[in-house]
Amino acid sequence: MDVGPVSIPFFELEATDGAGRAGVIHTPHGDLQTPLFAPVGTQAAVKAITPKQLQQTGVTLVLANAYHLYLRPGDEQIAALGGLHEFMSWRKPILTDSGGFQVFSLAENRQVDSDGVTFRSHIDGSIHRLTPEKIIAIQENLGADIIMAFDECSEPHDRAYNEQALARTHAWAERCLTAKTRSDQTLFGIVQGGIFADLREQSASTIASMDFPGIAIGGLSVGESKQDMLAMLEVVGSVLPQGRPRYLMGVGSPEDLVEAVVRGIDMFDCVLPTRMARNHAALTLLGRLNLRNASFAEDTRPIDPDCTCYTCRTFTRAYLRHLIASREMLAASLLTIHNLHTLISLTANLREAVIHGHLNQFSDQFLTNYHKHRPPES
Amino acid sequence: MDVGPVSIPFFELEATDGAGRAGVIHTPHGDLQTPLFAPVGTQAAVKAITPKQLQQTGVTLVLANAYHLYLRPGDEQIAALGGLHEFMSWRKPILTDSGGFQVFSLAENRQVDSDGVTFRSHIDGSIHRLTPEKIIAIQENLGADIIMAFDECSEPHDRAYNEQALARTHAWAERCLTAKTRSDQTLFGIVQGGIFADLREQSASTIASMDFPGIAIGGLSVGESKQDMLAMLEVVGSVLPQGRPRYLMGVGSPEDLVEAVVRGIDMFDCVLPTRMARNHAALTLLGRLNLRNASFAEDTRPIDPDCTCYTCRTFTRAYLRHLIASREMLAASLLTIHNLHTLISLTANLREAVIHGHLNQFSDQFLTNYHKHRPPES
Repeated sequence: MDVGPVSIPFFELEATDGAGRAGVIHTPHGDLQTPLFAPVGTQAAVKAITPKQLQQTGVTLVLANAYHLYLRPGDEQIAALGGLHEFMSWRKPILTDSGGFQVFSLAENRQVDSDGVTFRSHIDGSIHRLTPEKIIAIQENLGADIIMAFDECSEPHDRAYNEQALARTHAWAERCLTAKTRSDQTLFGIVQGGIFADLREQSASTIASMDFPGIAIGGLSVGESKQDMLAMLEVVGSVLPQGRPRYLMGVGSPEDLVEAVVRGIDMFDCVLPTRMARNHAALTLLGRLNLRNASFAEDTRPIDPDCTCYTCRTFTRAYLRHLIASREMLAASLLTIHNLHTLISLTANLREAVIHGHLNQFSDQFLTNYHKHRPPES
Repeated sequence: MDVGPVSIPFFELEATDGAGRAGVIHTPHGDLQTPLFAPVGTQAAVKAITPKQLQQTGVTLVLANAYHLYLRPGDEQIAALGGLHEFMSWRKPILTDSGGFQVFSLAENRQVDSDGVTFRSHIDGSIHRLTPEKIIAIQENLGADIIMAFDECSEPHDRAYNEQALARTHAWAERCLTAKTRSDQTLFGIVQGGIFADLREQSASTIASMDFPGIAIGGLSVGESKQDMLAMLEVVGSVLPQGRPRYLMGVGSPEDLVEAVVRGIDMFDCVLPTRMARNHAALTLLGRLNLRNASFAEDTRPIDPDCTCYTCRTFTRAYLRHLIASREMLAASLLTIHNLHTLISLTANLREAVIHGHLNQFSDQFLTNYHKHRPPES
C-alpha cells in the first residue's frame, strides 16, 4: 500500500457551490481539471478518431478497459510494448476500468465465488479466472494513471443479490488495495448497492473508510429510473469525504452530467457520445439530432451554431446527412468529434459555474432549455 | 468554347528528363505540381479521413465522381449548397470524373446509342439517361476545377467493340467541348482504344486535335496485362503534344506510378491506396504489408521507418495489428493516411528526379528494390 502523505496531493478541491465541486487531479501524465468527462477507448482506441483528434476536442482523460485488453491483445503484451500510453500513443492521463462491469455484462457462463469469478471469453469462448489480485496485476501491466478496484456489478433492483454482492465488493476492494504495488498509479474504490439507499450509504461509508484516494460510484445508469439514480447520488454524496474525487461510472448524457455535477460528482465516462456518433445522432445542449433524417438534406447550418468543434466549424448538416446516406465512415468520425466536444465543453462550463458560484442558475437554465426540446426520460 | 489564349496558361512544363515531365497546373483553387496523385472521393468524401487529414498527408487534388453525385445527393442539390468545394469543405482543386467508367461498370441494364446511354441506377434501380451535354451540365453544377469528357469505356481486348466505341467517344468529346459554358473549369478529353496500338494512336491524334487543355488516357488498368498497359502509354505518349498535361486514369500502385512517369504521365488517380487501407494493407516502396498478419503482433516498428506520415510517426505495427484484430475503424483511417502519404511522397520524389535529370536512375533503383521484395505482376 502506498497511499499516504506525498508531496503533491492526488486531488485538490478548488471551489464548491452547494454540493457542486471544481477541483484538479494530479497524475504522472498531467493534471485533470474537474468536473471532467472521459471518452471510452475500450480496446485502447476511442472509436473512429485518432489521438490527435481526441486532443483537439479538448479530451484530457481517456478510459480503457482492463477486461477487453486482458483478453486481446493481452496485458502482458501491452506491458512488453511499453504500456498502454505508449501502445495507443496517448501521452495524457488514462484510467482503466477493472472489468467488473464487463465480466457481469459481457462474459458467458460466469461463476462467482468469494475469491473471484470464472467465465468464458465473449471473444473466443476460452475459460478465464479473475480475482482482485489478478485484476490489479492486469492493470499494473497496462499502466494507466488511475486504476479501479474489482467489483461485482449486480442487478440494481434485487435486494438480496445486492446485499450478497456488496459484501464481496467490499472484501475485494480491501484485497485490491493490498495487492497494489506500483506507486505511479492511483487506485479507486467502487461504491455499489443498487437502488437501495441504506446499502448505498453503507457501501459509501465502507469504501470511504479504506485508503482509496478516489471513489467511484458503480452500478448506476444500468436500467434503474433517473429518479432512483439521482436519489442514490444524493445518499452517497452525503457520506463521501470532500477531499477525494467522486467518479460516476458509465454516465454521459448532457442532462445527467448537469444533474450529477449539481450533486457533487467530479468525473464521468460513457460510451454514449461515441456510440451515438456511429448511430448518426448528434448531441446538442438542446437535445439530439438524428442526422440520417431527410429533413437535413438541404440544411446548411452546422450541427450546433454555437459549437466550436472542427465538425461544426467545417461541415453543414446537409453534408453530414449525405455522408450517412452514402454510408461513408467519415460520418462517424465527424460526429464523434462533435459529440465529445459537446460534453467536454459542458463540463468546462459546469466548472466555471461552480467557480463563479452560479451552478444552480446554470443548471436550471440548461435543464429548462433541454427539456423544452426533449421530454425527460422516465 | 472558351479555350484560347488566357493570361496564365493552364499548364506549364517546367522540366523534362527523357519522356518524363515535371510541370505545374494552374486552377482557380490553387496550383498543382506534377507528377501528382489524386485520391478518390467518389461520394464527395475520401473514405475514412477528414479534409484536414487529407491536407496533412500532402494531397493537393481530390477526385470526385459525377455519376455517383448525380445519383446521390444530386448535382443540382450540390449546386444549391454552393458547389462541391463548399459541400465537402475541400478548398483546393477538385477533378470530377465524367462517369463514363461508372456507367459502363456499375450501372445496370445499360443501352448505348449514338446520342448517349440509358441505364438503371445501381443504388435504387431508377432509370436515367446521360448524354455528353447532360454530363457537362452535371459537372458544371458540381463545379470542380477540372472536368472530364463523357467517354465509352470498352472491354480492352475486343477490337470490334473498341472501334465502334472509339467513334462514339470522339463524337461525344466534341459535343462536350461545345456544351461547356463555365470559364472557371478546364475540360479534359479522354483517349481510348483498348490494347490496340493503332486505335490508341488514332484516338490520341483525334483528341489532341480538339481544344482540350488536358488529355486523359482511359480504359487502362482494367484487366489488360502490365506489358500491354505500358505499351499503350508509349504509343499515346509519342502522339500527344508536350504542352498539355497527361492524366492516366485509375492507376495508383507505386510501381505503376514510376513506370508511367517514365513514359510521360503527369497525373494519376486511383482507389487503390484508400481501398487497400480498408482491407488492412499498407503500401510501402518495398511492397505491401498485410497488417492483419499475426507476425506483426509484437512488431514495434512503424509501417515504414522512412515514412514521415502521422501514422508512421505515431503508431507501431503491433498497435495497428491490434486495431485490425479488434475491428476498430481507426485502423482504416490510419492506413489511409499512410497509403496516401506514400504515393504523394513518391510523386514528389519523381518530380525532383525529373527536375534534377536522374529519373532513370531513380526508377531503376526503385523498381529493383520493389521487385526484389515482390515479384512483378503478370
